[in-house]
Amino acid sequence: MPKPQIDFFYFFGSGYAYLPVMRIDEVAERAGVEVRWRPFSVRTLMRENNIGLRNQPGKMRYIWRDIERRAKWHGIPFVRSPIWPTDPDELANRVAIVAFAEGWGRDYTKASFRSWYLDGQPLGEPSALNQVLSSLGRDPAEVVAKANSDETHAVYAAETEAARQLGIFGSPTFVAGGEVFWGDDRLEEALAWAKGEHPARGEGQE
Amino acid sequence: MPKPQIDFFYFFGSGYAYLPVMRIDEVAERAGVEVRWRPFSVRTLMRENNIGLRNQPGKMRYIWRDIERRAKWHGIPFVRSPIWPTDPDELANRVAIVAFAEGWGRDYTKASFRSWYLDGQPLGEPSALNQVLSSLGRDPAEVVAKANSDETHAVYAAETEAARQLGIFGSPTFVAGGEVFWGDDRLEEALAWAKGEHPARGEGQE
Repeated sequence: MPKPQIDFFYFFGSGYAYLPVMRIDEVAERAGVEVRWRPFSVRTLMRENNIGLRNQPGKMRYIWRDIERRAKWHGIPFVRSPIWPTDPDELANRVAIVAFAEGWGRDYTKASFRSWYLDGQPLGEPSALNQVLSSLGRDPAEVVAKANSDETHAVYAAETEAARQLGIFGSPTFVAGGEVFWGDDRLEEALAWAKGEHPARGEGQE
Repeated sequence: MPKPQIDFFYFFGSGYAYLPVMRIDEVAERAGVEVRWRPFSVRTLMRENNIGLRNQPGKMRYIWRDIERRAKWHGIPFVRSPIWPTDPDELANRVAIVAFAEGWGRDYTKASFRSWYLDGQPLGEPSALNQVLSSLGRDPAEVVAKANSDETHAVYAAETEAARQLGIFGSPTFVAGGEVFWGDDRLEEALAWAKGEHPARGEGQE
């Protein structure tokens, strides 16, 4: 029997995505569930849905504090609220498309979030990106050229469209058997769903 | 030593408030924490913060499905997504101000949410409200007159102002020792905070 699977949709630049990036491998491994990592442009979908966070300073203050508490709650390191908003051209995201196509996407994702959250670097800026890529033994110029190619733009747009079709509107989001779970705090439910162990499973979406 | 305490801010008409309304007494009792129930106008604060959900049908579809799943997850009954939006004059909320002043606020809150969620009644409409109040042995006309008084309006506005001052922007929200936790899924953290058992406690809010 194939392992149950979930899709993990996330965005480089999403504060909350830090939590599953840091814990999903271990938690999913323990649950016996495989994870497909799928970076997409939540910024595009949030803009379309008019859910901008940039003009909600009170809510953003809450969000950073909540992430800090949740990080401690999970035993994940937290040093400071990272630079935000960030990744203006979504270059850090498009590099992930290249990295996953070449098989080093998870390492890149984790190194990138660590650089942003723990080292306080500006995500998506050349200085930070070059450092992350070099630390992984990659040639920054070569990788960035691929990230800027039409092909990469097209794959990134297609992943974003796939997220839109699923009804996704935020990051991180987990999808298990067509069922959508939004937020790191729903990860355990998504895993249970994938394994057929969620008490609401089989009741049909309204 | 006095029991640790949390404040429970919620709105009649908030879909997610159903979950803590149904489970907070048992969970808090088990944790040895006292709960102060504080209805307030989240609608006013959401309007100010421009976080309207009425124009986000995709997100609302997700929210009802999420509440359904979370209800099953907690073993709370769920029959259908309730009528929404509802309580156009916030009368169901203002009745709660009267009910808490007279000592029957919790019973009223639970009966009201059950009527809305389980019986499919239109929250805040006279027909539904009269039924709820009668089932509690209250005189609907008398209670509604008090709920429409200047004094009740003023208390309700003051509670909403207190929520605003705390930085609250959504319902339900729990407050423990000045620390704000938004969402039913943060209830366990809020209780841990109240008891001094949260791993992030003592690190100071940013």
